[in-house]
Amino acid sequence: MQKLINFDHASATRPLPEVVESMKPYMDELFGNPSSMHSEGQKVKQAIDEAREQVARLINASPEEIVFTASGSESNNFVLKGVAFANRKKGDHIIVSAIEHFSVLQAAKTLEKLGYAVTQIPVDKDGLVNPDDVKKAITDKTILVSIMHANHEIGTIEPITDIVKIVKEKGILVHSDGVQTVGTIAVDVKKLDVDFMSFAAQPFYGPKGVAALYIKKGSRINPLIDGGIQEGGRRAGTENVMGIVGMGKAAEIAAKDMDKRVAHTRSLRDKLIHSLEEKIDHVHLHGHRELRLPNNVNFGFEYIEGESILLFLGMDHILASSGSACTSKALKASHVLLAIGVSHAIANGTILFTPGIDNTEADVELLSEKLPPIVERLRAMSPLYHK
Amino acid sequence: MQKLINFDHASATRPLPEVVESMKPYMDELFGNPSSMHSEGQKVKQAIDEAREQVARLINASPEEIVFTASGSESNNFVLKGVAFANRKKGDHIIVSAIEHFSVLQAAKTLEKLGYAVTQIPVDKDGLVNPDDVKKAITDKTILVSIMHANHEIGTIEPITDIVKIVKEKGILVHSDGVQTVGTIAVDVKKLDVDFMSFAAQPFYGPKGVAALYIKKGSRINPLIDGGIQEGGRRAGTENVMGIVGMGKAAEIAAKDMDKRVAHTRSLRDKLIHSLEEKIDHVHLHGHRELRLPNNVNFGFEYIEGESILLFLGMDHILASSGSACTSKALKASHVLLAIGVSHAIANGTILFTPGIDNTEADVELLSEKLPPIVERLRAMSPLYHK
Repeated sequence: MQKLINFDHASATRPLPEVVESMKPYMDELFGNPSSMHSEGQKVKQAIDEAREQVARLINASPEEIVFTASGSESNNFVLKGVAFANRKKGDHIIVSAIEHFSVLQAAKTLEKLGYAVTQIPVDKDGLVNPDDVKKAITDKTILVSIMHANHEIGTIEPITDIVKIVKEKGILVHSDGVQTVGTIAVDVKKLDVDFMSFAAQPFYGPKGVAALYIKKGSRINPLIDGGIQEGGRRAGTENVMGIVGMGKAAEIAAKDMDKRVAHTRSLRDKLIHSLEEKIDHVHLHGHRELRLPNNVNFGFEYIEGESILLFLGMDHILASSGSACTSKALKASHVLLAIGVSHAIANGTILFTPGIDNTEADVELLSEKLPPIVERLRAMSPLYHK
Repeated sequence: MQKLINFDHASATRPLPEVVESMKPYMDELFGNPSSMHSEGQKVKQAIDEAREQVARLINASPEEIVFTASGSESNNFVLKGVAFANRKKGDHIIVSAIEHFSVLQAAKTLEKLGYAVTQIPVDKDGLVNPDDVKKAITDKTILVSIMHANHEIGTIEPITDIVKIVKEKGILVHSDGVQTVGTIAVDVKKLDVDFMSFAAQPFYGPKGVAALYIKKGSRINPLIDGGIQEGGRRAGTENVMGIVGMGKAAEIAAKDMDKRVAHTRSLRDKLIHSLEEKIDHVHLHGHRELRLPNNVNFGFEYIEGESILLFLGMDHILASSGSACTSKALKASHVLLAIGVSHAIANGTILFTPGIDNTEADVELLSEKLPPIVERLRAMSPLYHK
């Protein structure tokens, strides 16, 4: 069988062998409930404590500031709804950017239905939020500003430090969705000075179904899941022990390998961008050219459909994506691309390539060789295209 | 090392070997995102589809009526908040029983803070809800009745069919927390005629961190976690694929082994109840004697502390619990025991024994032999006790 080349790490990564090994004992041998007082429970509690330390270290937080959740989407819902409900007496206005992940935008929409006001900040053609726009949007009713650290489709890294400075001056809480950055680039929550940060294990080669929310000590937030005393009373429910242990191990390795990974994926990213721009005409790189995730390449191909490109790449055993996996089946034009001014036509002809640690220069060369004839062939069939 | 005897299955079960094996391929080999359009994603999607069928079959539901979640607590929060928010125009009144799991009671408390009215129905000395009390509590503002199928501490099985009949006549939605019953006794949601039922994988020897909510076709409910299109748009977030596959396998085996398991644990339960009542005086069986989970034995021991009993049992490698693991660390008297009229003193001297498929008659004999001298010894130290 031909080797599969994964340029779709944004949708899924293969968990590291060390991560998988770390989880196995918690599948059966160590099956206790961490809330149990007896020895079997306490052994498991220790493992969760250790994972919490590993995860905290990755972002320079204290272990008590980490709450484990089941997904980045849960973390985003937790912070938006939890801050809104806990701070209702203080105000009812929330600010988000137009290119947030759907779990932020939809949670904000739910809050609107419950009587909250939500302001969406636009972005420029590169996907950047202008901190001045945030400043202008703040009212005396604003209780939360939620601007993502980096975008999941176009890879643009937002000027969070500048935004935080403005928001903090007004004494307002700040959340940043760090699902695309934590474990991918160096993230220090103390330096960023955010109050909340969502992140997940999958982007740094951890298991699916486990994520976390950083909650700066003392920040007012209600649980999304009420009930028992797990996670310091901030998230009820018996823990996904296996997943948490795996996330801890993945975080430890991500911290250690960070520089190497960044250098590796950045070099593949730049090679791929250079090569596709050289070999294919009528292509557009979406997102900021420098302020960009090291593992993100997003190209719009004029005159053709992204889905058709993916189909042909699939025949060559190359995986890529037409956008966010969370919405791929919706087959609608990406709200992120529309927000940066991309036309519907080009949005539908857009492909997201996300290289990872398992990719090589040879993979990029293969893709650069396979893609141009695919694009040419599809364009030849397009009534809109005239060479 | 001496064999550990687990009479604390309510806190944690050891996942079955078949369950663990079923999950392993999804730890690394099959790592695709089920929302991805390409082959790697679709293989994983098929596994989730199959698990959904297995889980649906266990309770006689359709696969589309199953939404996977991360815990019974999440399912309970999902249904209480989701129904409350989706039906706000219809009414703002919710009915629960006084002995619900904390995730129901605390979710109801959160709704109260948001302006909803909540009525708590009391229970009798055996923990039974009187359907007439539910009838009387219903107003024209009632939008949801949530009464658990069986209690997690005292094992009493509630008269759900009678309650549902009353509630349905009024056109009101009914939820039943089935965490203690689904996979433990035969549960048929069509026969019970509930609109929602929460349940988790752990009680039937599946993995931790995965659960489900049965949502009868057409029932009005909002997501708890907004965002992407996973789970038919009812719960956003990349799926815990491994956990879902394990839950499916565990459900399949639970359905097949149901009669055998019920007979086995019921026999151990009855033997243990008989033996402890015979050998120890001043003991009280909590919960209904007949309308009772086959795997539940809950005894109050006068004059002594439950925690001390557990400590001594632990030295003999016997695990039991002083109540719900979700609240065990709170060290407060159980709200369930107080609701059935147990005194604080006896509530603090209560032990929950939950036998499982891995227990034998010999285990019960050992416990029946070890426990009486422990109780005697502790009572001898108690200033309150006079033989």
